[in-house]
Amino acid sequence: MMIRSHLGDCRWTETPVLGYKQDGTTSFRDITKQILFEGAQMHFQWRYFEVAPGGYSSLERHEHEHAVMVVRGAGRVLLQDAVYDIGHYDLILVPPMTWHQFQPTGDEPLGFLCIVNAERDRPQLPTAADLELLRQHPAVAAFIKV
Amino acid sequence: MMIRSHLGDCRWTETPVLGYKQDGTTSFRDITKQILFEGAQMHFQWRYFEVAPGGYSSLERHEHEHAVMVVRGAGRVLLQDAVYDIGHYDLILVPPMTWHQFQPTGDEPLGFLCIVNAERDRPQLPTAADLELLRQHPAVAAFIKV
Repeated sequence: MMIRSHLGDCRWTETPVLGYKQDGTTSFRDITKQILFEGAQMHFQWRYFEVAPGGYSSLERHEHEHAVMVVRGAGRVLLQDAVYDIGHYDLILVPPMTWHQFQPTGDEPLGFLCIVNAERDRPQLPTAADLELLRQHPAVAAFIKV
Repeated sequence: MMIRSHLGDCRWTETPVLGYKQDGTTSFRDITKQILFEGAQMHFQWRYFEVAPGGYSSLERHEHEHAVMVVRGAGRVLLQDAVYDIGHYDLILVPPMTWHQFQPTGDEPLGFLCIVNAERDRPQLPTAADLELLRQHPAVAAFIKV
């Protein structure tokens, strides 16, 4: 269908709510994914991710960029060596090879749009040495969940 | 900057509000454009368009697809031979070579995200013959503005 209606709370007609990375290769909690747009002629994929209170996205990095807009709730994001507050309609660019993790704050889920290139590399997870480096920043050490 | 904050009413830090197609080759009224994300490594461009009450986007078609989400106000959209109501967070796919035009309803601007491939063809404007065909549909004839 050319139009998919918003049903409220970031659910849409004809748009399944998917579990996130159910292949067991990464660490995350209480997060769902919806693919809003993709297609053979599209050079991008438009996704919606939602992290429930207490949950977190996987801590990862990759060569491809993430273009992100918050559309539900509020939260914090790790970008390499600092943690930032993010709220409604804020825009976040995750540059290449930048460690990142999203977490909600408060009682509402954190929901965000995330656009990526259709062709992209696979995420990398932190090694023990990577985690040690990240944790040298106290604010990062207090934030990250793996 | 990696984070650009929402200032309210779909304005963002470090994000200029641009006039729309100021080259005089098309017909539109009271519409602005903001480029939210683009870049050498991005295979897409993420834009925000806003049409003021009484305004309209250009009536056009092209080979590339538009992936659209309404994020401010409400309106109606022409998709080829029919007109649809659209509101908050609704998703709209404009398929290849589909005539389309966006117009707000009510007193608030209609604002929508629109993602396109970075490499794409130029829009085509309707000829007199195209307009005659479009106007054979009464609802379309009553809607379109050129």
